[in-house]
Amino acid sequence: MISPIDATLQLLQFDTGNTAFMLLATSLVMLMTPGLAFFYGGLVGRKNVLTIMIQSFVSMAIVTILWFAVGYSLCFSGDTFGIIGNLDKAFLNGVNPGDVFTGNGQIPEMVFIVYQMMFAIITPALITGAFTNRVDFKAYLIFLVAWMFLVYFPFVHMIWGGGILAQWGVLDFAGGIAVHTIAGFAALASVLFVGPRVIKEKGPHSIPLVALGTGLLWFGWYGFNAGSELAVDTITVLAFINTDLAASVAGATWLALAWILEKKPKFVGFLTGAVAGLATITPAAGFVTPGASMIIGFIAGIVCYFAIGFKDRMKWDDALDVWGVHGIGGALGTICLGIFATTTINAGGANGLIAGNFVFFGVQFLAVVIAAAWAFIFTYVMLFIINKITPVRVTDVVESSLDEGQLGEVAYLSDEGEI
Amino acid sequence: MISPIDATLQLLQFDTGNTAFMLLATSLVMLMTPGLAFFYGGLVGRKNVLTIMIQSFVSMAIVTILWFAVGYSLCFSGDTFGIIGNLDKAFLNGVNPGDVFTGNGQIPEMVFIVYQMMFAIITPALITGAFTNRVDFKAYLIFLVAWMFLVYFPFVHMIWGGGILAQWGVLDFAGGIAVHTIAGFAALASVLFVGPRVIKEKGPHSIPLVALGTGLLWFGWYGFNAGSELAVDTITVLAFINTDLAASVAGATWLALAWILEKKPKFVGFLTGAVAGLATITPAAGFVTPGASMIIGFIAGIVCYFAIGFKDRMKWDDALDVWGVHGIGGALGTICLGIFATTTINAGGANGLIAGNFVFFGVQFLAVVIAAAWAFIFTYVMLFIINKITPVRVTDVVESSLDEGQLGEVAYLSDEGEI
Amino acid sequence: MISPIDATLQLLQFDTGNTAFMLLATSLVMLMTPGLAFFYGGLVGRKNVLTIMIQSFVSMAIVTILWFAVGYSLCFSGDTFGIIGNLDKAFLNGVNPGDVFTGNGQIPEMVFIVYQMMFAIITPALITGAFTNRVDFKAYLIFLVAWMFLVYFPFVHMIWGGGILAQWGVLDFAGGIAVHTIAGFAALASVLFVGPRVIKEKGPHSIPLVALGTGLLWFGWYGFNAGSELAVDTITVLAFINTDLAASVAGATWLALAWILEKKPKFVGFLTGAVAGLATITPAAGFVTPGASMIIGFIAGIVCYFAIGFKDRMKWDDALDVWGVHGIGGALGTICLGIFATTTINAGGANGLIAGNFVFFGVQFLAVVIAAAWAFIFTYVMLFIINKITPVRVTDVVESSLDEGQLGEVAYLSDEGEI
Repeated sequence: MISPIDATLQLLQFDTGNTAFMLLATSLVMLMTPGLAFFYGGLVGRKNVLTIMIQSFVSMAIVTILWFAVGYSLCFSGDTFGIIGNLDKAFLNGVNPGDVFTGNGQIPEMVFIVYQMMFAIITPALITGAFTNRVDFKAYLIFLVAWMFLVYFPFVHMIWGGGILAQWGVLDFAGGIAVHTIAGFAALASVLFVGPRVIKEKGPHSIPLVALGTGLLWFGWYGFNAGSELAVDTITVLAFINTDLAASVAGATWLALAWILEKKPKFVGFLTGAVAGLATITPAAGFVTPGASMIIGFIAGIVCYFAIGFKDRMKWDDALDVWGVHGIGGALGTICLGIFATTTINAGGANGLIAGNFVFFGVQFLAVVIAAAWAFIFTYVMLFIINKITPVRVTDVVESSLDEGQLGEVAYLSDEGEI
Repeated sequence: MISPIDATLQLLQFDTGNTAFMLLATSLVMLMTPGLAFFYGGLVGRKNVLTIMIQSFVSMAIVTILWFAVGYSLCFSGDTFGIIGNLDKAFLNGVNPGDVFTGNGQIPEMVFIVYQMMFAIITPALITGAFTNRVDFKAYLIFLVAWMFLVYFPFVHMIWGGGILAQWGVLDFAGGIAVHTIAGFAALASVLFVGPRVIKEKGPHSIPLVALGTGLLWFGWYGFNAGSELAVDTITVLAFINTDLAASVAGATWLALAWILEKKPKFVGFLTGAVAGLATITPAAGFVTPGASMIIGFIAGIVCYFAIGFKDRMKWDDALDVWGVHGIGGALGTICLGIFATTTINAGGANGLIAGNFVFFGVQFLAVVIAAAWAFIFTYVMLFIINKITPVRVTDVVESSLDEGQLGEVAYLSDEGEI
Repeated sequence: MISPIDATLQLLQFDTGNTAFMLLATSLVMLMTPGLAFFYGGLVGRKNVLTIMIQSFVSMAIVTILWFAVGYSLCFSGDTFGIIGNLDKAFLNGVNPGDVFTGNGQIPEMVFIVYQMMFAIITPALITGAFTNRVDFKAYLIFLVAWMFLVYFPFVHMIWGGGILAQWGVLDFAGGIAVHTIAGFAALASVLFVGPRVIKEKGPHSIPLVALGTGLLWFGWYGFNAGSELAVDTITVLAFINTDLAASVAGATWLALAWILEKKPKFVGFLTGAVAGLATITPAAGFVTPGASMIIGFIAGIVCYFAIGFKDRMKWDDALDVWGVHGIGGALGTICLGIFATTTINAGGANGLIAGNFVFFGVQFLAVVIAAAWAFIFTYVMLFIINKITPVRVTDVVESSLDEGQLGEVAYLSDEGEI
């Protein structure tokens, strides 16, 4: 706005470089949710694309409203029993655009609010890959809201909002627990609750769409991890480079494993491996050395690959491997942080097992177990209760042509002879 | 460039954070035009994809050249009768890379030039969604150039370049009038001039492509709205958060309306609603509170939804709803700004109706009427004249296979019988 | 990471605006490689999409690891005979997150490392468009690694790492030689070595995918060119605007040529022209005026267009025109820099032919000839040797269904005979 009237600039009392970076990091994280929709959408069959894509997109609307209304406040305002915040900042009550984020004094609080909002949006969307093709949209919406209250908000508060896990000294740079572990174990619970798909659709309907999703996720992940320092400093740079290294090594590892064990260097395997590496380095990105990040990426490639094999043997129909990639990846990364963390690289971090700190390792491990169990149990119970209100699972008839049945739309029109 | 020769850094005399933000905001806004091409391209049939996509892409080339040659100067250099600038800065005459943008003293003038250029590129591209499938490419190119001179440049000058509307006190943060209203009413005029499509093609040929377009538009819109503060300050942050809130609420509202009235929660409805919310909040983003933004998003969802119903009843063949989304959205947002604006949130803004300022409300309303009428009339007359030079409308035969007929290309090759 | 434990901020000793810009520019350049994969993937047939896409994506993993291990050090640490660096910084030995980049003192060295890494990733990926549909994936991986050592690392060192070309005074702002010329002439060598495709597939299988790739490339190119100043100053802004102008003019020129000579305004022609303009302005972006950039864009559109015609007459099966666009574009831009460079716009640059400096022009020309010859010869010899180890070319049977044969995957599943 540059009309002469608006000559008064509302100057920041803090550094413009930090604020510029965080606003753009927020934009990058926002783009991850469409990216996830394309990643998941490409992996399913042609008749089920929109139903899974809308589950991600609608989170951008619903969670945004929820976050503004109560979510931010419940996560970051005050503390109740170490588990959840209070409602003092509901509807951003008392937060002015000029207020500084007291967590580091470097950015406006509103930037922190909107940055954190993007994390809240993508976390429940991650879960949807597990129960693809068989969950009713209305039931999903109820689940989405309930899950935020019962799982997401508590864990963000416990870890990043000064709650009990933070008090124990648990570290989670960008969401190994608060995003990936809880989403992954919620995914597993949802798969066990809804049961397997009746109609086994054929593989990815569009691998280019999967590649697009991966590209956007990888791009956005720089904002996700480097942005989690909430300012531009040396840790930001470290987190950026660590993110890229872990993704690269995990992608290459997965590709090699697929080549050796499945006889072909699968492209989808490479893409999945890269995402697994990104999820795994997330909690550790700002606390470990680049060399450790490469080791973590390598471990991620192997462990997540075999986790998926384990899931297959268990006949869990986690369609798009949310548990194997995000649940195991997030948990693994949080535990790896307990091993590789070193205060020589980040004085504000901790020392891990290698530096002789058994306590920190134990605390990280315990936090993962609590998060996985909490997410699993609450998700299962939640779906059980929602199912009493409205059927969680679509009928077999709808499942056979999901987009048509759920949304009244089809992803692609082939125009045969129409024009 | 890091060879030893280039050791001399050309230091900025102003803040690097502001300039970094604006260069990246410019990049984000640039990406909106390809995003628009995908949004529109996905909504049409398989045989007409490229013709509408090239109309957006070619604007990136033609308008860039035009902007550099005379556009910037006509918008922002001097003033002629309050309606247009002069040619003193044609070909950026006298503008050096080190010159400061005198509008706020925070960024180089060249950054302002290239940022504003991205707005000039996308505005005429918005119109193309209305007359899809039936306007000849050569006629479009003539129209594109003429429209910039007769509609776009005057309104940018009148509102942002110190022209008559700015003198009246009209506010438009990021283009409610200067982008959306004039594009939307030009769209309506073009639909009435060219008449309806002969061949009614079936719905969107690729909703994933529409979703991709929406994702990129939403992403770029942060640069569009937050960047319109032209610096990083508290208003930038406010505009960012308001943009997201309005898009979210409008998308959710549209989804709910479709679910209630059309019995299905349409994904395309959600995406269209989000774009309507984005267009509507555009003029107001830096002048209203987050709470007001949510109300504006809600109103946008309802009003634009029913505007499209109205259009259907009028049998206007505005194929991709440019009038309903951008015309009505932009006008509505500008008027809402007249209602909700408050100097408590932006001292450089104004007070609206709620704060008791009838004058500002009246001025905003009047500006919208002038913009809509001007854009409608000039567009209609322009098309009438162009039609004397070269047929604006393609023949029915070409319309039946547009990409082939116009560009000699088809969007998708199915490898006849191979797969 | 905002737990109370992490209160210590690791403050930068330098400007946050510069570092924020460079981290985000790095992200933008990263996105170009997926963009390239979509650009190339869209241009091939439906059965060969994944094989070319994985060639780009896998470079993100392999080159990242290589760059971290030895690449950065070989390019930028020390000097051996003016041709290559040393291994002192292998595995980033001795580089700490807080170390400043001594090249300009404005950003951390780690930011420079990761920014340059993105250039290293995309350069070999560019080559793959030439030998599409007929190079075995295993042979490609060997080629990728060998090419980095024998062509990429030496040229980056020679031009940007203080090597012999830098000592001669050769300028290359963002990679006219170090990226485009060497990739383009390596492409030509690879085409001559592997021979033409046996199966002539039909044209682009998805032009929307090509458009997506172009959009992401153009977007990322702002980071590529403007970011090459490695800070936010007036040259950054100049490079940004020059990049956009050259792309626009080249795209428009190509479109006009196609319209005149091929009778249709081809969309793919426009997109190819824009990429040619981007490649051509790359070496010159920070050293010439905006007016000169438009002239360079115009020359790029014409010369690259006819270069492709020449290639056709020579029956070189450079499938996606890597030589014509990147080889000729990069060489042309480097020579144009020798003509149009002026120290009036960048005091740290040079004067070119127009300013009467024959020496600089001669040096630029010579550097191009050396780069083209080196890249051509080394690539040809390398492929000859690799072919002794493992067949570089796939069998004709595999070529007829490449994705299936190479990766065991198909790009699109049509779900039971529907399309």
